[in-house]
Amino acid sequence: MTDLTAVEVIRAKRYGRALTDEQLRWFVDAYTRGDVADEQAAALLMAIVWRGMTPHELASWTDAMIRSGDRLDLSGLGKPTVDKHSTGGVGDKISLPLVPLVAACGAAVPQLSGRGLGFTGGTLDKLESIAGIRVAMTNEEILQQLRDVGCVICAAGPGLAPADRKLYALRDVTGTVESIPLIASSIMSKKVAEGAESLVLDVKFGSGAFMTVRAEARKLAEAMVSIGSRNGVRTTAFLTSMECPLGRSAGNAVEVAETLEVLDGGGPPDVVELTLTLAREMLALAGIDADPAAALADGRARAKWDEMIRAQGGDPDAPLPTAAHTRVVPAPSTGYLCRLDAMAIGIAAWRLGAGREDKDDPVSATAGVTWTKAVGEHVERGEPLLVLHGDDKARLDAVTAFAHSAYAIDREPPAPAPLVVERIAR
Amino acid sequence: MTDLTAVEVIRAKRYGRALTDEQLRWFVDAYTRGDVADEQAAALLMAIVWRGMTPHELASWTDAMIRSGDRLDLSGLGKPTVDKHSTGGVGDKISLPLVPLVAACGAAVPQLSGRGLGFTGGTLDKLESIAGIRVAMTNEEILQQLRDVGCVICAAGPGLAPADRKLYALRDVTGTVESIPLIASSIMSKKVAEGAESLVLDVKFGSGAFMTVRAEARKLAEAMVSIGSRNGVRTTAFLTSMECPLGRSAGNAVEVAETLEVLDGGGPPDVVELTLTLAREMLALAGIDADPAAALADGRARAKWDEMIRAQGGDPDAPLPTAAHTRVVPAPSTGYLCRLDAMAIGIAAWRLGAGREDKDDPVSATAGVTWTKAVGEHVERGEPLLVLHGDDKARLDAVTAFAHSAYAIDREPPAPAPLVVERIAR
Repeated sequence: MTDLTAVEVIRAKRYGRALTDEQLRWFVDAYTRGDVADEQAAALLMAIVWRGMTPHELASWTDAMIRSGDRLDLSGLGKPTVDKHSTGGVGDKISLPLVPLVAACGAAVPQLSGRGLGFTGGTLDKLESIAGIRVAMTNEEILQQLRDVGCVICAAGPGLAPADRKLYALRDVTGTVESIPLIASSIMSKKVAEGAESLVLDVKFGSGAFMTVRAEARKLAEAMVSIGSRNGVRTTAFLTSMECPLGRSAGNAVEVAETLEVLDGGGPPDVVELTLTLAREMLALAGIDADPAAALADGRARAKWDEMIRAQGGDPDAPLPTAAHTRVVPAPSTGYLCRLDAMAIGIAAWRLGAGREDKDDPVSATAGVTWTKAVGEHVERGEPLLVLHGDDKARLDAVTAFAHSAYAIDREPPAPAPLVVERIAR
Repeated sequence: MTDLTAVEVIRAKRYGRALTDEQLRWFVDAYTRGDVADEQAAALLMAIVWRGMTPHELASWTDAMIRSGDRLDLSGLGKPTVDKHSTGGVGDKISLPLVPLVAACGAAVPQLSGRGLGFTGGTLDKLESIAGIRVAMTNEEILQQLRDVGCVICAAGPGLAPADRKLYALRDVTGTVESIPLIASSIMSKKVAEGAESLVLDVKFGSGAFMTVRAEARKLAEAMVSIGSRNGVRTTAFLTSMECPLGRSAGNAVEVAETLEVLDGGGPPDVVELTLTLAREMLALAGIDADPAAALADGRARAKWDEMIRAQGGDPDAPLPTAAHTRVVPAPSTGYLCRLDAMAIGIAAWRLGAGREDKDDPVSATAGVTWTKAVGEHVERGEPLLVLHGDDKARLDAVTAFAHSAYAIDREPPAPAPLVVERIAR
């Protein structure tokens, strides 16, 4: 190894040169162990925001982040391994039905997930509305559950991609969060470290997504597919719309309730459509010839869910918690629901307590928003349109006024808009 | 004051927006007092390298740096105040004859200067080859000497623009040194804080200068003239060539010896030309109608030098130190000296010990390079061309071999190249 210095690496990037594998690996290693200072890493991050990274650089940078910690070894499971990741949206509970569904079809699914921050919820927060559930697991426990049950939804432990944890905290305070290469490497370092052979990405765009513009979402999807493929993980991505919230609920327990509807063969059509689209892709990548719709219809997916919840200490038969109070927002006129804004619904749920402002804030299991109609459906004046759920009356009152900004009713139905708009493979 | 955060300011700049006066002042203040972290300032610096600054932003940023410390109040001196700054070059001893010359013509000249780093020397290092000289002075001592003598060449104390000290150290480790706005604000914060009403800048370009390209040097000059004018200091700049080293010497005591030749009415023509050009501009800005050439010829400039040296504890009559050893590099052929490379001469002097690698290294007073011919002059094979001076024989041997790369002799003289190429005023 030649004698590298942080300043040389930063200068190379600020002048727009591609960094070598050696430079990228050295920098990530040295930063993770504390030999490169925060101010030097901050300067490099801003230079990356400015100059970008080539696909090769990005794969090496991500590889270095993965090597900073553990990579799960799933090779002994004896079945295909596949996972899914969503960039997050309002009402996006898809992982909850999807993971047991794909496992019921024969794959092993190690869904190591995160908590929500801001107005898009986190899968773990939703799962934790189930009494007794445990989401903190050791690598050994994860492997054991994958052997015994075939799926797990739990927290990504501190051993996975510790470089990402350090870099993410730094990006948060240095205005370098929004950057395709930095977002893509952050997500993919954790997902590749999970050890699954295949990965399907749900990259969302629209008012309720991190990326509001479709072209930006496509760039992110392409970057992540490239990183996965270059790091030995079969990876494809779907671009999906997040203008409307998914399903009929945004919150924690309310989304688990909707998950159970889907697993029991019902549920909102958009949630079923997206769950099946992702399931078919995951199974195809895993080389499994199975029909996930059948597994929803015949109860196998629900049985796998129950098995997974029990394995993690939860009681799948216990009633879900409900909020102490609800407020019904009636439709102010008759017509068609032509807009239900994902961001506004997300903010309403967040203000009711379903999300957190700071990463250490608690969340309310029961707070959230449900709605009775999907965009395009007919509504009668006075019938319930939105229902706000919460334990805190003052918050409910405040959010009720705000909730009117979340929808629009018109005389004509809007043109139907597709949910899944594009598939991106290498 | 609204509630500002470092992340907001960084994000505004990374997205290419001009920062407000309030944002700039808050950030510099908060960083100087430690309320903004190094990694946040590093991210902002890289975003400034990327996005640049408008003239208005740059003036406000510099003003905030000035306000972080003292600004000398020279209003009680009862005479016009004017200073000069050079961006530094090889053999650039111009401040040494210029400061007493302009003072001899009736202005007060507060030359607060720095030490050299790398192959271009520092004025204070040169001055310190005079026995007994003191360059560390309090603000009160500076004011007293300006009253009594009319000029001073001493170190800029820690009270002047402390924000610059902190930002400069940060730039050094984050690859953000090269940046027109950051260089311009660093220089100008210290010069404006000196309190002079007028300022003349010597901005160098070429092989021996920080800026090798003339167009870049012009941008730097324009930025500094803009900052000075917007902060109430009459400021003009000259672009001057630094392809060849100035005069016939590069080092410390050897440059003081050349200074004395100039002050005694002789000296190399290029040094005299540049000294008089800068002196005339300084006097014009100060509103003083005087002929600096006369002050060199009649001994008034030399008398002022002696007075200044004595006021700072030095003995102007003491012999200058000389090196224990010299090596003569003879001309290898007959012809015209068509190239004498400023950077190569600078590196030779630096390797002999005249400069420092780290800011706390000592320098040798006696080490340096002198030469007998200017570019364009005729040389005979075998006559002395360069003389290397040093106390360390091993270093002399090593540098002698290197010194041959510093010059070229050809049959025809080169086309004459001007030294002062452009004057830049607001």
